[in-house]
Amino acid sequence: MTFEDARAQFPVLDRIAYLNAGSNGPLPRVAVEATRARLERDLVEGRSGMAWIEEIAATRERIREGIGAVLGATADLVALTDSTTRGCQIVVAGLGLSAGDEIVTTDQEHFGLIGPLHASGARVVVVEAAEEALLAAVTPRTRLVAVSHILWTTGRRLDLARLRRPDGPPLLVDGAQSAGAIPVDLTGVDFYTVSAQKWLCSVDQSGALFVRDPDRLRVALPSIYAQQSHETDGSFVPRDGARRFDAGWTGGPTLAGLEAALGVHPEWRYEGGAAAAARCRELLEPLVDVVTPEGHSNLFAFHPPGSPAELVATLDEHGVVVREIPGRNLVRASCGWWTSEDDLRRLADGLAG
Amino acid sequence: MTFEDARAQFPVLDRIAYLNAGSNGPLPRVAVEATRARLERDLVEGRSGMAWIEEIAATRERIREGIGAVLGATADLVALTDSTTRGCQIVVAGLGLSAGDEIVTTDQEHFGLIGPLHASGARVVVVEAAEEALLAAVTPRTRLVAVSHILWTTGRRLDLARLRRPDGPPLLVDGAQSAGAIPVDLTGVDFYTVSAQKWLCSVDQSGALFVRDPDRLRVALPSIYAQQSHETDGSFVPRDGARRFDAGWTGGPTLAGLEAALGVHPEWRYEGGAAAAARCRELLEPLVDVVTPEGHSNLFAFHPPGSPAELVATLDEHGVVVREIPGRNLVRASCGWWTSEDDLRRLADGLAG
Repeated sequence: MTFEDARAQFPVLDRIAYLNAGSNGPLPRVAVEATRARLERDLVEGRSGMAWIEEIAATRERIREGIGAVLGATADLVALTDSTTRGCQIVVAGLGLSAGDEIVTTDQEHFGLIGPLHASGARVVVVEAAEEALLAAVTPRTRLVAVSHILWTTGRRLDLARLRRPDGPPLLVDGAQSAGAIPVDLTGVDFYTVSAQKWLCSVDQSGALFVRDPDRLRVALPSIYAQQSHETDGSFVPRDGARRFDAGWTGGPTLAGLEAALGVHPEWRYEGGAAAAARCRELLEPLVDVVTPEGHSNLFAFHPPGSPAELVATLDEHGVVVREIPGRNLVRASCGWWTSEDDLRRLADGLAG
Repeated sequence: MTFEDARAQFPVLDRIAYLNAGSNGPLPRVAVEATRARLERDLVEGRSGMAWIEEIAATRERIREGIGAVLGATADLVALTDSTTRGCQIVVAGLGLSAGDEIVTTDQEHFGLIGPLHASGARVVVVEAAEEALLAAVTPRTRLVAVSHILWTTGRRLDLARLRRPDGPPLLVDGAQSAGAIPVDLTGVDFYTVSAQKWLCSVDQSGALFVRDPDRLRVALPSIYAQQSHETDGSFVPRDGARRFDAGWTGGPTLAGLEAALGVHPEWRYEGGAAAAARCRELLEPLVDVVTPEGHSNLFAFHPPGSPAELVATLDEHGVVVREIPGRNLVRASCGWWTSEDDLRRLADGLAG
């Protein structure tokens, strides 16, 4: 697929320099059409019947394969969820932590991760977002290390293989800014949670959770998909593999959109995204105070000369979409494989002007 | 609104005797159009920016009001979720139960309720689905009584006001088969969890949870909506009222569909549904072994003469949609305010033939 063909899949890019896949990816026309077509069918034919149920079940399995392919994992270890946050909740609740336990995390995490960590009742130990600091904070009471693969604030990437020691605590990774954006290597990772509506360009309320060893995590938040059979007291025989952690019902229209979105990504997506991020750096480095380390991610975060909120609003008026990271005096641009030289020049012009 | 106008909102009813709102309601054209229009806008304009975020926040508040109106509750006590199951998870996790605790429930509950009850770690005490049996099972160790308002299997309605004693344990109610189907009176109810895609005819992945006293339930499954501000260790200042229990992100298209669906219900919806259920009984009582008590709900469950699965499949071939309740030798028809004499006659003919 040529760059032009790949980019032409996203109508939003016709007018807007859309640089915020870190919040929500641009939507591909085929994903929206698939969602709309499925919705129309549900409208006319109803949402019921064996054929309807079986088609949804089969679509779920194809998506499990598709997300497994993105993560380099077998489908059997992939649960379908509705958000990165849900994956964090499922893991943290499943570990059954209590006040004597500790979780080590960084000071750059999204509430979707640290909210559930706090709610676990364990002590949350917060350190600088660097591998050595994280490793140094592990004690015999540490039951979990929980970090983002790519920090949503600074765009720094953490070296996951270094963080997971064979005799150390399990590693939960928030993959919101990485899955679909950079190649993912799950070596050493116990749990990896994904939002599909960001870098995978899916419709809303879609996501996934990788669980390396499903038999060792308790099903603490069971949905109908947790069980293959159950008793009247709710005790149940879990489904195979990570399917038992499926977060709950996902509508047929959403599944159709997600499946279609998984099909739009060109082979060169990771090289393309990295090249766009590198070009963004080249153009913007002379203009702003960059915080994202070179080569770490497709995010590009910087301290703006003035107010972040005002800059974001001004750029928005000129059809350039980036976001503020609240409370950190940061503005963040997201560069995807669909990002053009013109998009980046418009951003640079907005900053220079 | 006349019956004909009310019914004409649902294209599926043109051809199909759709009698399965207990699984998923018929979709109104306006809800699907609203979802599709919103999706098209996200496609062309992107999913980002202050105006976009503010519109979603405002829509959430209008929906909170709308569902509050259905339940007879102030919006402040309504959390937005994606399913009945999620509401159960939020409540059970928030209560922080353990092995010494007991939960009393019935032998007729859906896994979406009893799955989370089992996962709580408390002892689940299962009794016959009758008010006296439930009250008799309460002990000093009972921390929760958890039942359906209308049992999804038999269609029996439980008397909630009788179940909640002033000095007794709190009452969690699964409202999947009641909200939108019958008038709901929350007197005595502590938690009431709702699926919007059933009797409220919404698009998928929409629902709500009523929490009488938000300050007394811990936020155990926080989403981004839980907090108005937070620290790096995940500790947070909760949002006002039940908003803190909002289950997570709901897409703009889903919100648009849900809001539109809340607008299609005529004033006479409860009388209409009850009349359809009564007429269903009249036509079918001579033909099958009915289990639903008269006047209890819009569900109509019966033991078929032969195999439930075969009957459901045969009816389906004739454009009559009902469902089997697995493992209970039951077939269930759902009668809504949109159900016509012709729909019911087609069901009766299918049973007689």
